[in-house]
Amino acid sequence: MQLLFLGTGAGMPSKQRNTTSTVLKLLEERGTFWMFDCGEATQHQILHTTLKPRKLEKLFITHLHGDHIYGLPGLLGSRSFLGGDEPLTIYGPTGLKNWIDVTLAVSKTHVKYPLTIIEIEEGTVFEDEQFIVEAKLLEHVMPCYGYSVKQKALAPELYIEKTDALGVPRGPLLRQLKEGNDVVLSNGTIVKSEEVTGEVREGFKVTILGDTKYCENSIQLSEKADIVVHEGTFDIETAELARLYGHSTIVDAAEVCQNAYAKNLVVNHISARFLSSDLSNMLTQVKHYPFPIYIAEDLAEYSFVNGLLTKCK
Amino acid sequence: MQLLFLGTGAGMPSKQRNTTSTVLKLLEERGTFWMFDCGEATQHQILHTTLKPRKLEKLFITHLHGDHIYGLPGLLGSRSFLGGDEPLTIYGPTGLKNWIDVTLAVSKTHVKYPLTIIEIEEGTVFEDEQFIVEAKLLEHVMPCYGYSVKQKALAPELYIEKTDALGVPRGPLLRQLKEGNDVVLSNGTIVKSEEVTGEVREGFKVTILGDTKYCENSIQLSEKADIVVHEGTFDIETAELARLYGHSTIVDAAEVCQNAYAKNLVVNHISARFLSSDLSNMLTQVKHYPFPIYIAEDLAEYSFVNGLLTKCK
Ligand SMILES: [Zn+2]
Ligand SMILES: [Zn+2]
Repeated sequence: MQLLFLGTGAGMPSKQRNTTSTVLKLLEERGTFWMFDCGEATQHQILHTTLKPRKLEKLFITHLHGDHIYGLPGLLGSRSFLGGDEPLTIYGPTGLKNWIDVTLAVSKTHVKYPLTIIEIEEGTVFEDEQFIVEAKLLEHVMPCYGYSVKQKALAPELYIEKTDALGVPRGPLLRQLKEGNDVVLSNGTIVKSEEVTGEVREGFKVTILGDTKYCENSIQLSEKADIVVHEGTFDIETAELARLYGHSTIVDAAEVCQNAYAKNLVVNHISARFLSSDLSNMLTQVKHYPFPIYIAEDLAEYSFVNGLLTKCK
Repeated sequence: MQLLFLGTGAGMPSKQRNTTSTVLKLLEERGTFWMFDCGEATQHQILHTTLKPRKLEKLFITHLHGDHIYGLPGLLGSRSFLGGDEPLTIYGPTGLKNWIDVTLAVSKTHVKYPLTIIEIEEGTVFEDEQFIVEAKLLEHVMPCYGYSVKQKALAPELYIEKTDALGVPRGPLLRQLKEGNDVVLSNGTIVKSEEVTGEVREGFKVTILGDTKYCENSIQLSEKADIVVHEGTFDIETAELARLYGHSTIVDAAEVCQNAYAKNLVVNHISARFLSSDLSNMLTQVKHYPFPIYIAEDLAEYSFVNGLLTKCK
């Protein structure tokens, strides 16, 4: 799993930061990637990555401000043009479906893949054998959702040298054992799953929040998350503006993580008022928090391996 | 007057060419600029120019394909955010107004300037003392307009040393003379306008066409134009695709200019299949035409001075 930040700015594009889009790369886990928000020119940012639009499986929209959705129609059209024919599901607030429908219709964009648009409410918005995605409303100037993505526990490793030694034939019995069931061999021997498997491995949890003030639902969504992506439009010195416009400071973001016992924080949605040279000052404001804190840049990629988050690009 | 090409690609953005947007800079003439089409990330392209969004006075949309309109909502919002409070008028085909209204409403974008959206028909779509803009339907897979912009004849130069010598007082009489009217001085002397003025200067004519096959209306709009901007999505070798998708080859574009007695041709809307190295081959296909032909690149600027078009950036 990797997190790839396509756009990390707020409100309007600048030369340094595009409007918001964050990609959760699940290529190893399910051969696809998921996207959270899609500001204008997200498809342009993709041109600078190895992402293939046809591998976009799910798109979660936090809220309907332009800097989070205006790149959607272009990406939907290009995904079709580039040969994407696998289904795509979009999740987001009420009003999203009508806008997409009107926009694709007026521009005579006929996508060639099954497109499903789900207007969500709080709760579980997606679940399969691998993942569960929960949404909660945050506190912004319009309805805005945060999403937590929890990978389910991974099947334990099966020690094939042990099953061989016990005479378990290669075939369906191995799967039974891997899934935690004991089996009886044709000679009557009982083989217990726990004899031949390793430990159940915990899945990861990533929480990707939208535009919001510091709020309780952010904490709940972020509970014990491995990674929290939280907006930090402002800093301590501009905290007044954050309150005024329904946004957070980088300190608010850190407080959420602290109170949620989260393990890593990546801050995005940075106001264009902050230049690269201001970022170290922002990080100084949160240096006393006991977990790693990063300020994301456009096209930066973070890799989560063996419980550790590292910036790989 | 200058022509600035913000996006010169077709269908989808590429690293080389953004989707379509062409700017007619009228800073000397009226302190503003006009835009023709607004593909996604047009506002991003503007970041690489000296254009100020608040100086955008008129926006003409040729047709409603996504690669010509998906940049509109973002630009409208940013123009407001950046302090633009002067009126903006958008001209385009039926369906444009509803889409803009729905899009601004869903994203809670409240622009602070008077925004007028005019769904046009063929004919004169704008006229004032300086300019007249005419639109005609072209031949594409959906309704698509071309626009001609004709600058009206410029008031002749008034020779102030001559009026002084004839005893014309500085004041309103000078304006009368400049506008072609003869005047009577208080001492009864008649001063003829033609005695004290230079020649009437012709204004320029620029024709900016949308996506189209070779068609008669392109020729009519381009008649004796100083500059024609015509799409050349394809070349001779891919002419079959041009026919199929309602587009033109660079040769079609040159034929239009030839038959319209136009003076300069700039070709835009180039398919991403053509690399920079293919452009000289495309130009070779039209080298026998007796007028200058350019293939526009993103951010290229052409200046029209004393009847001559030159590439200045
Ligand atoms: Zn935002
Ligand atoms: Zn086009």
